[in-house]
Amino acid sequence: MTAPAAGTHKPVRRYDPDRKTRIADAAVDVIAQYGVAGTTHRRIAAAADVPLGSLTYHFAGLSDLLERAFRRHAAHMSRAYAAHFDGVRTHEQFVDAVTDLIDGAAGADARDWAVAYELYLAALREPALRAVTESWMRTSRAVLERFVDPVTARGVDALIEGLAMHRTLSTTVGASRADVRTIIARVAGAAL
Amino acid sequence: MTAPAAGTHKPVRRYDPDRKTRIADAAVDVIAQYGVAGTTHRRIAAAADVPLGSLTYHFAGLSDLLERAFRRHAAHMSRAYAAHFDGVRTHEQFVDAVTDLIDGAAGADARDWAVAYELYLAALREPALRAVTESWMRTSRAVLERFVDPVTARGVDALIEGLAMHRTLSTTVGASRADVRTIIARVAGAAL
Repeated sequence: MTAPAAGTHKPVRRYDPDRKTRIADAAVDVIAQYGVAGTTHRRIAAAADVPLGSLTYHFAGLSDLLERAFRRHAAHMSRAYAAHFDGVRTHEQFVDAVTDLIDGAAGADARDWAVAYELYLAALREPALRAVTESWMRTSRAVLERFVDPVTARGVDALIEGLAMHRTLSTTVGASRADVRTIIARVAGAAL
Repeated sequence: MTAPAAGTHKPVRRYDPDRKTRIADAAVDVIAQYGVAGTTHRRIAAAADVPLGSLTYHFAGLSDLLERAFRRHAAHMSRAYAAHFDGVRTHEQFVDAVTDLIDGAAGADARDWAVAYELYLAALREPALRAVTESWMRTSRAVLERFVDPVTARGVDALIEGLAMHRTLSTTVGASRADVRTIIARVAGAAL
């Protein structure tokens, strides 16, 4: 944090150690509302309630800021994902937890999904952002690998993504919980 | 098609029965390049090489045009999807065809994926577009249901989506073909 130059009449900025994080979180809100295409320095500064100059102080540019924002979102989603498996001990409980995760749209509301799709789309257009998606996928698989082998973890994670996504894109109720559980149980295979 | 008013000096428009379709296809190109957020009447008219007025003649508005564009894209992707299963007779061949589909990123290049994600994102924000995603998913499942039961078809379709998507978002080679086949074979279950 730079102090204002001596002799100016600007008030001394309050001690604000979390400002960088707060700016990144505000950027997530702006992405959710306006999409990456409508995300500007000005809107982020307004959402974070900081002066524009604070963004250029903390971030190398809009790409850097978007990457930090997406990393914050991925971290938030990963915590929700991992929390679904707290207390899981048996293979049956594992299959139930995965089913719950899909039933609850992977712990994500429409806003969370919108930010995730914005990231997927941005990562297609901007390969540098695939570092964020890669690390997010690795984190998810690491959670699953506490219960199943790596190949199975990959299949279960893809199934969670596909089934939860198809649910958000559907106009009907879709697969019943029992059907989802049947599919998951097949991919998850026999008990370890 | 309206004829130019008598007495004007505009050339008589050539007979152009496919103009509406051509405009919708041009809109897909514009979405691929600029995203939904950057898709305007002006850009679509330029891409289709038609006057702006032609868009308002053929479409009720930009939402209508976007919906037609996404339907064209879904139809194109559905044909590529179905073509993967031409000549499939046995359960083994079915598992191979699904594996090939994922290996080939569901027959889609980066441009196709970008348009698909644009649709998913737009459908999240605009529920009316879920009629397009719902009909696309039904078409895909109908192809799979020639080989497996409806619940299995749902699982296989979600797995294709999730695995192909995770592949586009990864920085590494990811699952080997043999691993993908193992996962598919498990979901696809025993031979019919």
